[in-house]
Amino acid sequence: MKSNFEQNKEKLIGDYNLLINRRNEKIDGNGVYCRYKYPVLTAGHLPLDWRYDFNPTTNPFLMERIGVNAAFNSGAIKWKGRYLLVVRVEGYDRKSFFAIAESPNGIDQFKFWDYPVVIPPSDPQETNVYDMRLTLHQDGWIYGIFCSERLDPKAPEGDLSSAIASAGIVRTRDLKTWERLPNLQSRSQQRNVVLHPEFVHGKYALYTRPQEDFISTGRGGGIGWALVDDMTNAQIHDEKIINYRAYHTIKEVKNGEGPHPIKTEKGWLHLAHGVRACASGLRYVLYLYMTALDDPARVIAEPGGYFMAPMGDERIGDVSNVLFSNGWIADDDGTVFIYYASSDTRMHVATSTIDRLVDYCLNTPKDGLHFYDSVSTIIDLIDRNRSL
Amino acid sequence: MKSNFEQNKEKLIGDYNLLINRRNEKIDGNGVYCRYKYPVLTAGHLPLDWRYDFNPTTNPFLMERIGVNAAFNSGAIKWKGRYLLVVRVEGYDRKSFFAIAESPNGIDQFKFWDYPVVIPPSDPQETNVYDMRLTLHQDGWIYGIFCSERLDPKAPEGDLSSAIASAGIVRTRDLKTWERLPNLQSRSQQRNVVLHPEFVHGKYALYTRPQEDFISTGRGGGIGWALVDDMTNAQIHDEKIINYRAYHTIKEVKNGEGPHPIKTEKGWLHLAHGVRACASGLRYVLYLYMTALDDPARVIAEPGGYFMAPMGDERIGDVSNVLFSNGWIADDDGTVFIYYASSDTRMHVATSTIDRLVDYCLNTPKDGLHFYDSVSTIIDLIDRNRSL
Repeated sequence: MKSNFEQNKEKLIGDYNLLINRRNEKIDGNGVYCRYKYPVLTAGHLPLDWRYDFNPTTNPFLMERIGVNAAFNSGAIKWKGRYLLVVRVEGYDRKSFFAIAESPNGIDQFKFWDYPVVIPPSDPQETNVYDMRLTLHQDGWIYGIFCSERLDPKAPEGDLSSAIASAGIVRTRDLKTWERLPNLQSRSQQRNVVLHPEFVHGKYALYTRPQEDFISTGRGGGIGWALVDDMTNAQIHDEKIINYRAYHTIKEVKNGEGPHPIKTEKGWLHLAHGVRACASGLRYVLYLYMTALDDPARVIAEPGGYFMAPMGDERIGDVSNVLFSNGWIADDDGTVFIYYASSDTRMHVATSTIDRLVDYCLNTPKDGLHFYDSVSTIIDLIDRNRSL
Repeated sequence: MKSNFEQNKEKLIGDYNLLINRRNEKIDGNGVYCRYKYPVLTAGHLPLDWRYDFNPTTNPFLMERIGVNAAFNSGAIKWKGRYLLVVRVEGYDRKSFFAIAESPNGIDQFKFWDYPVVIPPSDPQETNVYDMRLTLHQDGWIYGIFCSERLDPKAPEGDLSSAIASAGIVRTRDLKTWERLPNLQSRSQQRNVVLHPEFVHGKYALYTRPQEDFISTGRGGGIGWALVDDMTNAQIHDEKIINYRAYHTIKEVKNGEGPHPIKTEKGWLHLAHGVRACASGLRYVLYLYMTALDDPARVIAEPGGYFMAPMGDERIGDVSNVLFSNGWIADDDGTVFIYYASSDTRMHVATSTIDRLVDYCLNTPKDGLHFYDSVSTIIDLIDRNRSL
């Protein structure tokens, strides 16, 4: 007869396999994109042998030894025909690290590789790393840029929350071995730094998000743009804002680039997040914009309002009212897989196509910035529909 | 054979008609009021031809062109035998405007009129308008008072959130054509301003909510009261607080008048909201109070605690933990339809009667302001019940 230990282990493994092999189902949307019924990744997807000690001698109660709290904000890349996410995994201890999960079709059956990603720390004070953006660059390397955090050495005594955020940089050729490069040098703190996939004027080009302190962006006006000579010693000398925050928009308080933009015939297609404040905290939504093919720093289209906002179960999580994306994959057939996290807790996918997203960017009315502009725009649409 | 476009359009319209014709179901409550199973209005109730371009040439993918984010905080009025809501509609672009939806019975089948309400801006800087209170005044006009917002011109550089809130005023005789009157002139910022339906000492009477800055009410003590000579040039000279905030009550941080009070034989029946702070932000609940028939500014009854608080799905939305009401309708038979929004996202109805609400106000124990008062009140009730 099987021991209790063996029976419990079999049940654990059985439930786990059901979860990670569950098929997803597409949900009709607004014509621009489709959501899917199930998250593509949750804390429960993390491999059991990363969490349980399966030795009955040292863990007779078969208890979880290392808890995983969340699997979210994931970079994405298509690699050898598979859909890969570089997931931000957060333990019960609040520390984040990276782990790769792969799927055969991009919408379900994501399975983690055998080991988490090993990133050497830049120095012993580096406390947390998260939100990696992956870029297969023209130079042949795959770069990962992520947020690197430490306690602010100037924090007042007793303040254990004030942190310094900067951009950590790694590169790899095989997604197995990661070379740590020096952190981005910048006059201000940085989050949401993303490497453009092509050289621009012979230089590496970064989307940035300069900020004055850890949480607020202060006078930092939005998504920035900077050219750097060398990714092995990346320094920002000149930085300009290319996509601004604005009063009473979905990006009133903060905004930031998502994954690197997708090249299309009509321009670079960008996915970003916008933040506003409300009585229950900050609200994060996703928006799109486009920049010129001949100048990725020049905005040529920006639809008004958000592209996606939290819905249903997405609204609730460790940090509620948040959608965030730092990964998407454009397939050769024009399908776009948008990987987004909800409420700092779990990963979802939405699918669309290049054609739809470009049409959305070019033909959705702009934000007029005043209520009367919005009303005029709607009345214009009503009248056009009535005249059909 | 039908094109994809035509098939998708038919499905859109079919789903939409199911939603807006869905019958509501009453849910038993606490004897004071009944909730209903379904919201009466959601973003999905907004007409399809306000959102979709139905021209296959200009919108070949049949994508939503103008997204509606929420339908909430609605004024209410009975008009030609129909139940009308002047809804705060918020687009994906965060701008709010007004649109009228009407129902034959007050509890379901709310349908929007053909066009949104057109309110001329007071000036080009007016950015957002919301939360209209409707009053059919003794003078024969229907007035709408709403919040009018603009960026604070004195906001520090980079602060794109600090706004100035004042009371916008419109009037109409048919709910179709709206005449914009000058904004209320007041020493302080104002939100939640409501016009009393009768002249008081020959003057127009306003419930106010003076506040020192945009979000906090500062030293402002609660719901105010002011008489004004002329609604076409409304100026507040004297303002007094009639319903105070208090420590450790449901209105510790803020409170504000809901719709205008209902006249009953025993006094004016008021619906208001109270706000407290907690670790997840602000919590908005509804409460009732009564004022004297001969002096609508003199409180004669105020039950302790809240009348309604968020429950179930109401708890979650764009701004979670919020119930808010700025509209109710008292029918000739004494039925009261309370229209309330949950979490800045959707509209609900609750029904009661004048008799029940007055009884609730006159016979619910007051707030004793200390826990031992609350315990005494409960013990007194237990003892009375045991002695039956």
